[in-house]
Amino acid sequence: MKVNSGLQHQENPTNDRSFIKATGGGAYKFSDLFKEKLGISLEKEDEMDCLVTGANFLLKAVNHEAFTYLNGQKEFVQIDHNDLYPYLLVNIGSGVSMVKVDGDGKFERVSGTSVGGGTFWGLGKLLTKCQSFDELLELSRRGNNRVLDMLVGDIYGGMDYSKIGLSSTAIASSFGRAISNNNELDDYKPEDVSRSLLRMISNNIGQIAYLNALRFGLKRIFFGGFFIRGHSYTMDTISVAVHFWSKGEAKAMFLRHEGFLGALGAFMSYERHSLDDLMTNQSVQIPVDASCGTDTNCNQLERDLNETESMQCSVYQA
Amino acid sequence: MKVNSGLQHQENPTNDRSFIKATGGGAYKFSDLFKEKLGISLEKEDEMDCLVTGANFLLKAVNHEAFTYLNGQKEFVQIDHNDLYPYLLVNIGSGVSMVKVDGDGKFERVSGTSVGGGTFWGLGKLLTKCQSFDELLELSRRGNNRVLDMLVGDIYGGMDYSKIGLSSTAIASSFGRAISNNNELDDYKPEDVSRSLLRMISNNIGQIAYLNALRFGLKRIFFGGFFIRGHSYTMDTISVAVHFWSKGEAKAMFLRHEGFLGALGAFMSYERHSLDDLMTNQSVQIPVDASCGTDTNCNQLERDLNETESMQCSVYQA
Repeated sequence: MKVNSGLQHQENPTNDRSFIKATGGGAYKFSDLFKEKLGISLEKEDEMDCLVTGANFLLKAVNHEAFTYLNGQKEFVQIDHNDLYPYLLVNIGSGVSMVKVDGDGKFERVSGTSVGGGTFWGLGKLLTKCQSFDELLELSRRGNNRVLDMLVGDIYGGMDYSKIGLSSTAIASSFGRAISNNNELDDYKPEDVSRSLLRMISNNIGQIAYLNALRFGLKRIFFGGFFIRGHSYTMDTISVAVHFWSKGEAKAMFLRHEGFLGALGAFMSYERHSLDDLMTNQSVQIPVDASCGTDTNCNQLERDLNETESMQCSVYQA
Repeated sequence: MKVNSGLQHQENPTNDRSFIKATGGGAYKFSDLFKEKLGISLEKEDEMDCLVTGANFLLKAVNHEAFTYLNGQKEFVQIDHNDLYPYLLVNIGSGVSMVKVDGDGKFERVSGTSVGGGTFWGLGKLLTKCQSFDELLELSRRGNNRVLDMLVGDIYGGMDYSKIGLSSTAIASSFGRAISNNNELDDYKPEDVSRSLLRMISNNIGQIAYLNALRFGLKRIFFGGFFIRGHSYTMDTISVAVHFWSKGEAKAMFLRHEGFLGALGAFMSYERHSLDDLMTNQSVQIPVDASCGTDTNCNQLERDLNETESMQCSVYQA
């Protein structure tokens, strides 16, 4: 479940009390704290509504919002606004929600898995004593998953199991090599543990997402959520999983502003920020160039969207 | 991947050398050992062939081979031999293979997952210092998964997320509660760790199996393999997962001799033990009563099949 809150602030004219739109678990978790410390009420918006609204907005308003990622190569995908729906939105927070999106406000949560970012960070914390999610993610860059994962070749004497299409280097059992020796946890490098964990979880999410896309005949799968954080190995593993299970027929796509779908959706739940209003306002049409380096159309919203660190808590003055 | 070998022994008339049919990773792993210590060659049989042959034999020859398991209740399922195919066979060894079976010798490995028995035992060993798979499984009986798993209610202030059909007690994030406090691994009971791990893995397998059954329109899913071992909580979790994801439309089924599919298939790869031969021999028709307690038709094969401990290495004299 996503726990980040998308916060916007305005005066409530009816009782002269400050309130903020918020969504996700954080809207519940931090409700008392906001009230007590800041005198601000959190107005809770439905999480799935916000995720979908945020994703639809980004995919329509931001050119080069979506991209594929394989073997370290990012490739932007041009989305035809008239051919956007239906798609599968996979939001990876603490857990994972898989949402079939048929249009603005038209969606259904069709699946999900409890094996998500919370599992990576929770198990990772227990296994490596890392102090933060980012530290764990950073560790995984330097790790080697072959130390702990049992490969097909480990089982079949170094050979492929070609009859069923499994190469010798495919992972047969995540963490399966930990069985076959007397090593204890301290004998393993935290880097290797983190790498195997990340690969296990990313691969699993990619597989379940693909199976759901297949089930509903969805040609596009967009992955977003706090778990990804633009981390190359995470995206690479998800992409490889979707490629492997679909036999090359499907591609994983990622969103440039993947951690902020809910926040954007909560922002847009203020009536004055509906998608239609924004889309009809020429000032928020977003330029082609993702970097904003040379594009003369690059406007304030695009710059705001790129400054992802500050967006989560940006305050709208009513 | 399944690593147990199904061993049968006979003299090879062509060169007067002993050989044994074997399958699974063990047929590779222990090949040199058998040759060196016993002078016996392992004749490797294809693992998927053996699994399917073994499963087909059991489902046709043994009455009350398949059963459902929910809330601690085992219920035998009568299988109509003429309406057995197609079905999904989920073999949970170190990794998991999912095989669509269309008939004798007709099958395709359609899916699988690396999150299987090796993951449970590998991660479990690192997290709990258990010395054996069975010890870890036994621990899980006494554990409480709520200590480590983040529930929907933990995120949404104790409430259901009823709009999308998630109750407050559904697991939102496996091991997600380990994030939210300063506990280290030693602060948790091994029982609780084992329980969360078992639930995560069993639930995941149940979900992926159901999605594959749906994909190919298969009405029956049989779960077998060394991971299950007749363990009630494992079966219960897989059953609940299939029930949950299928919205009650599909049921998980288990096999009474779940750990020995490959062994049986290897045995039957001796020409004289083909399924047709066995099925046409009245002496191996299996009685109705699974316990063999009072059924007068209860014969030696049925008794052998029930003595699962000895079956794996039983020796056939040519």
